[in-house]
Amino acid sequence: MKIEGLHYRTIWSNRKQKSVFIIDQTRLPFAFDIVTIQRWQDMVRSIQTMQVRGAPLIGAAGAYAMALACHELTASAQDISPVALADALQKVAHAVASSRPTAVNLAWAVHRMCGVLADVPVDQWLSKAWDEAERICVEDVEQNQAIAHHGVALIARLAEHKACVNILTHCNAGWLATVDYGTALAPVYQAHDAGMSLHVWVDETRPRNQGARLTAWELSQHGIPHTVISDNAGGYLMQTGQVDMVLVGADRVSRMGDVCNKIGTYLKALAAHHAKIPFYVAVPTPSIDWQIQSALNEMPIELRDAAEVSSISGLDAAGHEVSVRLMPEGSPALNPAFDVTPAAFVTGLITERGVFTPQQLETLCP
Amino acid sequence: MKIEGLHYRTIWSNRKQKSVFIIDQTRLPFAFDIVTIQRWQDMVRSIQTMQVRGAPLIGAAGAYAMALACHELTASAQDISPVALADALQKVAHAVASSRPTAVNLAWAVHRMCGVLADVPVDQWLSKAWDEAERICVEDVEQNQAIAHHGVALIARLAEHKACVNILTHCNAGWLATVDYGTALAPVYQAHDAGMSLHVWVDETRPRNQGARLTAWELSQHGIPHTVISDNAGGYLMQTGQVDMVLVGADRVSRMGDVCNKIGTYLKALAAHHAKIPFYVAVPTPSIDWQIQSALNEMPIELRDAAEVSSISGLDAAGHEVSVRLMPEGSPALNPAFDVTPAAFVTGLITERGVFTPQQLETLCP
Repeated sequence: MKIEGLHYRTIWSNRKQKSVFIIDQTRLPFAFDIVTIQRWQDMVRSIQTMQVRGAPLIGAAGAYAMALACHELTASAQDISPVALADALQKVAHAVASSRPTAVNLAWAVHRMCGVLADVPVDQWLSKAWDEAERICVEDVEQNQAIAHHGVALIARLAEHKACVNILTHCNAGWLATVDYGTALAPVYQAHDAGMSLHVWVDETRPRNQGARLTAWELSQHGIPHTVISDNAGGYLMQTGQVDMVLVGADRVSRMGDVCNKIGTYLKALAAHHAKIPFYVAVPTPSIDWQIQSALNEMPIELRDAAEVSSISGLDAAGHEVSVRLMPEGSPALNPAFDVTPAAFVTGLITERGVFTPQQLETLCP
Repeated sequence: MKIEGLHYRTIWSNRKQKSVFIIDQTRLPFAFDIVTIQRWQDMVRSIQTMQVRGAPLIGAAGAYAMALACHELTASAQDISPVALADALQKVAHAVASSRPTAVNLAWAVHRMCGVLADVPVDQWLSKAWDEAERICVEDVEQNQAIAHHGVALIARLAEHKACVNILTHCNAGWLATVDYGTALAPVYQAHDAGMSLHVWVDETRPRNQGARLTAWELSQHGIPHTVISDNAGGYLMQTGQVDMVLVGADRVSRMGDVCNKIGTYLKALAAHHAKIPFYVAVPTPSIDWQIQSALNEMPIELRDAAEVSSISGLDAAGHEVSVRLMPEGSPALNPAFDVTPAAFVTGLITERGVFTPQQLETLCP
């Protein structure tokens, strides 16, 4: 994606410098800061503090964390036994995989990295780890391009009957949530580039406002018409015929097609269902958890810090980003970060292998 | 309601001083400021800027605006003809009634004031207008006490099977939205005072955060256990069995039982419907618009300033209330303030005359 005319990915690396580079997404849209990460512990912190976020991107970040850990571990390889070394790698893997609980990509990427390292001698760990992390990034980009291809056909069908197609999205499932292109927004970018007339309703997505901060910024950078709304407004817009399609990403999808995504997604799915508006979920297959049947009972829902609800940050009149408290000091808050949209409310899942109904999803199971 | 041990109503008057007093609700919970209003135009501004808000309270405020206008008009009565005077009163009535469009109470109260003044000589306008405005306030308090009485029975029924009854509410339909006691919160206060174990989930209610700011503050003052959540969280809480009842107010209800209330109410009604959780609306009969059959087509939905979405105010670290921008400068926002919950999703309407299903509502029509 181009930022001020320069093409960026959201994560990239320099193997010689033992460095990984990320865009600090907690500062967007008010500052565009690139952070250099050289220790796996710092990558874990970046995942936890959401400097990097979005299911596909934290998968890539987790893979790079493992590559960085290989530097630390192999540096001390002559002093400790291979068994102890393998054990240390397992400990790192566990720490990285559990740095956030809900998206399955993180565990998937760490598991894949461990698999690659399991069968090779320690002196090959470094090159194998970097290769695999980079392969995960390349595959993410290819998957998202394929999602764009399949999703744009759905938009094109709506565009046949509409002067302008109105798409509602929740949270950020764009370029910033992936290595490049995005999941839910990938078809939007491609449709726009193909000359279709589009407008995106952007849910602000409290408490962290990834919609207002990140999605609005991405769409602005790409010149796509959009309007930010409070999370409460989507039902009204759907009731009154102002939405043609809801298009969101997913942090984890069950084999039955239940969708775990940013808190509030479920409410939009209900409104779409009652207004007979198609509700699509863009999801690369690594976000599908084939182990899980019923998402509502089996998927862990991350409870984040209540301070994300009680406070918010933004730019003051002087242009400084400040955090302000929104409620009385004595009132507690609760901050569940995800909810589950049952498969019954999902029109289709846009994967890199095509568009599937929840019922058809199981045919993809490896 | 008691604030720091002193009993306050949200609006009161001193006829001799030609003054009406209100609590500036835009400053709560960070400051408790009382504003003195002596000109009807200032009351209109207070309604528009939401220093006073809540359907019942703006009805009372509108009535007082008419009383204050009588001072201005009767002061110049000797210089102009009775016809011109009546005409001037009509102009004021129109300005007051249209200061906010969605709640029907405002138009209802102004219409009632005009009716009282229509048949009396100008030299009686002042006393009649003050009397009637005060009567409207007294009636509001009595209605809310009756709503409390009918509503508490519903909570008591849930309390028979629950150690603690979890009630979810949206926006502020409490003491602050009325002259005293509240609508949706009136039964909550009474149940708490009767010793029932309660907990209230408070939707923050973006964009103006009346839940996080006002409802949380009211409940704190009264010592009622509560937790503030983002507007996105209610669906998750209902899916996971953490809500026993949804209880909201209304700005306008159609004769068929469609409920126009703060934006986002509809989404909570959908979630309650799918989780089989009772969804109740506390509504004094002056908020029922017998003229309207289908709310979705006939009720005007107020579009407020987009700046309410793009910015928010709160307390900074130094304890000053500041406004911060939440999104990129180039991104537009839209701010519809209300939505319509169709009667099909309403379990019951708690009025001062009892609890009615939407189907039964028409029996109340005068």
